[in-house]
Amino acid sequence: MKIDLNSDMGEGFGRWRIADDDGLMDTVSSANIACGFHAGDYAIMSRTVQLAREKGVAIGAHPGLPDLTGFGRRTMNVSDADMEAMLVYQVGALQGIATRHGHRVTHVSYHAAFGTMANADEGLALRLARAIAALDPELTVFSMPGQLTERAAEKAGLRVHTLFLADRAYTTAGTLVPRGQPGAVIHDLAAVQARVSQFLEDGSVTTIDGARLPVKARSILVHSDTPGSLELARAIRTQIEASGATLTPASQITD
Amino acid sequence: MKIDLNSDMGEGFGRWRIADDDGLMDTVSSANIACGFHAGDYAIMSRTVQLAREKGVAIGAHPGLPDLTGFGRRTMNVSDADMEAMLVYQVGALQGIATRHGHRVTHVSYHAAFGTMANADEGLALRLARAIAALDPELTVFSMPGQLTERAAEKAGLRVHTLFLADRAYTTAGTLVPRGQPGAVIHDLAAVQARVSQFLEDGSVTTIDGARLPVKARSILVHSDTPGSLELARAIRTQIEASGATLTPASQITD
Amino acid sequence: MKIDLNSDMGEGFGRWRIADDDGLMDTVSSANIACGFHAGDYAIMSRTVQLAREKGVAIGAHPGLPDLTGFGRRTMNVSDADMEAMLVYQVGALQGIATRHGHRVTHVSYHAAFGTMANADEGLALRLARAIAALDPELTVFSMPGQLTERAAEKAGLRVHTLFLADRAYTTAGTLVPRGQPGAVIHDLAAVQARVSQFLEDGSVTTIDGARLPVKARSILVHSDTPGSLELARAIRTQIEASGATLTPASQITD
Amino acid sequence: MKIDLNSDMGEGFGRWRIADDDGLMDTVSSANIACGFHAGDYAIMSRTVQLAREKGVAIGAHPGLPDLTGFGRRTMNVSDADMEAMLVYQVGALQGIATRHGHRVTHVSYHAAFGTMANADEGLALRLARAIAALDPELTVFSMPGQLTERAAEKAGLRVHTLFLADRAYTTAGTLVPRGQPGAVIHDLAAVQARVSQFLEDGSVTTIDGARLPVKARSILVHSDTPGSLELARAIRTQIEASGATLTPASQITD
Repeated sequence: MKIDLNSDMGEGFGRWRIADDDGLMDTVSSANIACGFHAGDYAIMSRTVQLAREKGVAIGAHPGLPDLTGFGRRTMNVSDADMEAMLVYQVGALQGIATRHGHRVTHVSYHAAFGTMANADEGLALRLARAIAALDPELTVFSMPGQLTERAAEKAGLRVHTLFLADRAYTTAGTLVPRGQPGAVIHDLAAVQARVSQFLEDGSVTTIDGARLPVKARSILVHSDTPGSLELARAIRTQIEASGATLTPASQITD
Repeated sequence: MKIDLNSDMGEGFGRWRIADDDGLMDTVSSANIACGFHAGDYAIMSRTVQLAREKGVAIGAHPGLPDLTGFGRRTMNVSDADMEAMLVYQVGALQGIATRHGHRVTHVSYHAAFGTMANADEGLALRLARAIAALDPELTVFSMPGQLTERAAEKAGLRVHTLFLADRAYTTAGTLVPRGQPGAVIHDLAAVQARVSQFLEDGSVTTIDGARLPVKARSILVHSDTPGSLELARAIRTQIEASGATLTPASQITD
Repeated sequence: MKIDLNSDMGEGFGRWRIADDDGLMDTVSSANIACGFHAGDYAIMSRTVQLAREKGVAIGAHPGLPDLTGFGRRTMNVSDADMEAMLVYQVGALQGIATRHGHRVTHVSYHAAFGTMANADEGLALRLARAIAALDPELTVFSMPGQLTERAAEKAGLRVHTLFLADRAYTTAGTLVPRGQPGAVIHDLAAVQARVSQFLEDGSVTTIDGARLPVKARSILVHSDTPGSLELARAIRTQIEASGATLTPASQITD
Repeated sequence: MKIDLNSDMGEGFGRWRIADDDGLMDTVSSANIACGFHAGDYAIMSRTVQLAREKGVAIGAHPGLPDLTGFGRRTMNVSDADMEAMLVYQVGALQGIATRHGHRVTHVSYHAAFGTMANADEGLALRLARAIAALDPELTVFSMPGQLTERAAEKAGLRVHTLFLADRAYTTAGTLVPRGQPGAVIHDLAAVQARVSQFLEDGSVTTIDGARLPVKARSILVHSDTPGSLELARAIRTQIEASGATLTPASQITD
């Protein structure tokens, strides 16, 4: 079986850094690269894409709201037309950088509040998906479990990969338990690894209510901006390889 | 004969505007579109590209330094690698927006201090030209008369168009008399039109010393951010048409 | 009677302008000066304060959300602590510039979405008012009619001036008819002037339902960013002077 | 004897951090706080000032060029009037935040390229010093050794403190050996501590040529953005206390 391991990358700005991108780039199969609105800048994007090219890591655009101070986590009252233009600008900028370095953008993964807004409005979700298809119909869209983004991307004729979040609790409906609710985030490394093992063995996750839920995901997301993210990513990579699965960029998993 | 008339466009930001882009888009054959660093934003770029598509105007990227407050007119002490990344990011962003709206970026024209810096350093000029060629070898580069950008673009295998600036005085060396020197800018509309007529008739300009200088340009630039720019652009368009020449985007003038 | 006429000022950015600030500064008694977040920058603020000083116009801070692209009109999901820090930063910056030019900030007037957010949350409104009082207890707060900002400022021990908006329809509750509803904005200059006359004569406004409503305002706001704003401001100033009232900065109207 | 130990603080932005400000605030006597142009934002400034207030650390403004991507390290071609307005805006913003938290800005220390530019132009240096005096004549100015800023501040009637940089080599003229030249930066902790000891004992430094040079500084600067900065600051603090000197904010050292 082919399994993708991905992480957000290039989320520094100017002199600032937030994760050990060099270490992560040796570990993941796909990198979701910030595009300059919530984080990332021309120089960081350029270096990150070059690094991904050297390491054979697939790259995706990780577009966000234009809010550096808020790291793209504050929803804003923005028109659908502006959301679409933000998306296209950011994906286009990364495509340009990829072309320059002989690489190619093969997926798109919304960042934080940008994703929250897309997933709260069916019309917006579809508009964004169609814009992605217009940019490049070969682009794969990453979606959180059970969200509008997934259906919208399918409607727009795009391939979709649902992410498996090993450190987040699931409801029986297959959505994530919202942050802030008790048990929403699993901090214990052993517990996270146990969830990864179960997912790799039988493609299921145990929900917050104790039920066994089938998960159709083939792509595991590790949040890069939490302490210990590199260790977690390495541990999961080892688990994937030990399970007999092949680490493969999501955009190349077509079965 | 084919003659191009072009102008910088989309140089507003958010609510702010600097020129009558709607009027200009009815007048020019090529639009040099700001890409969000010195001016322009995702929404303005999107609307400008859409307008250009509707009016059949060719579009080019007009990349600048990341300096909104200074409108990209203040040179900065930036590394060559950063200059290249800035260029690629901006051209890529515009290419994305063009693709989304069924249009295509066919030329690149540096803005203000970005161009000043490129033209002061042969190595940088060549590096930038090669980055443009890597993005799309079909791109045409616009150059001010007698500058490094021209030679660099040719070395990189790109097509170049030298701009004719009807409202700027020329030296006998074929370069522009620097702003600030007496007579550098020609403010009188009739004088500007006389220069355009001479250029259209025999492809020459009278230098500041009174000499007749052959000008190989086929592309006339009208600065959009000066008062009366729309009237000037309309007057020149009328002159071009009256001369029997055909208004044609520079990127389509290949003879 | 003393009447204040005020307008938002310095709402350009870099090279961009939105209103005829020079003309307005000859016309109003108070200027609400943008502080760099939604509009305005260090250079524009400096020139605007200098101009106000020369013309004897009172100045106030006009703080907004950090959103240049959206001109501070898009509400954002920001914490109360951040809202307070934004406010203090902006007022402090203007106070510094005023001190440098021998002037003094004597009022505060929230801009667009910043005001909308303050007026939607009693706790936030009070927190902001207390921060203003901590900065300078002599500061006067400008409030739209019938809003939380007014009560909060009073609770914080600050003087408040309610604005009269001659071009906006009022409800019988004394609040503004929301934009977007029919009749919310009065575009006809004669109608606006008739409303100013009535206000100057007997301190009342005719509501959208035809009722005569007493208005306690002593301060008339002219939106500077609408076409014809300078003409409107001049017309109202003439009306004020013709009525026998004295044009006086709101911060000096203490009766 | 009274000795000041200071460090640049609050040089993060949004979610990003560059130094262990909490640890440093327990160690230094003065904090040079970034003001939002090269680093720092309203929220970080607010928290940093509050922390300084709680710990009894004196605060100063650390103004920089408006260049977040370049961390204020890239000189720009800016007019003197704009430099002054940048300075006043930033100091004013910090003064506002200090007032809000019951603290007071007592010094000013230029950041990177902002200082480089001031120290390259006597007229600019004097203009900036006079603007500081206009803001608050009690402000102390921090200066690198042997620079124009020092003389300009004195001319403007301001108190000046020259910084001692324990990890930088000195010329016999009393200026710093420029970065990039061999031996300019001393990386060895023991060597740095030996230099601090010598400075504390007899107020001298050994120049790069081996000469003993008297240093009039009373204020030691620790660069916070280098790895190990907190350990270095702690070591120097221990040395100061062991020497019998009293750790005192520079702005309170008047002898």
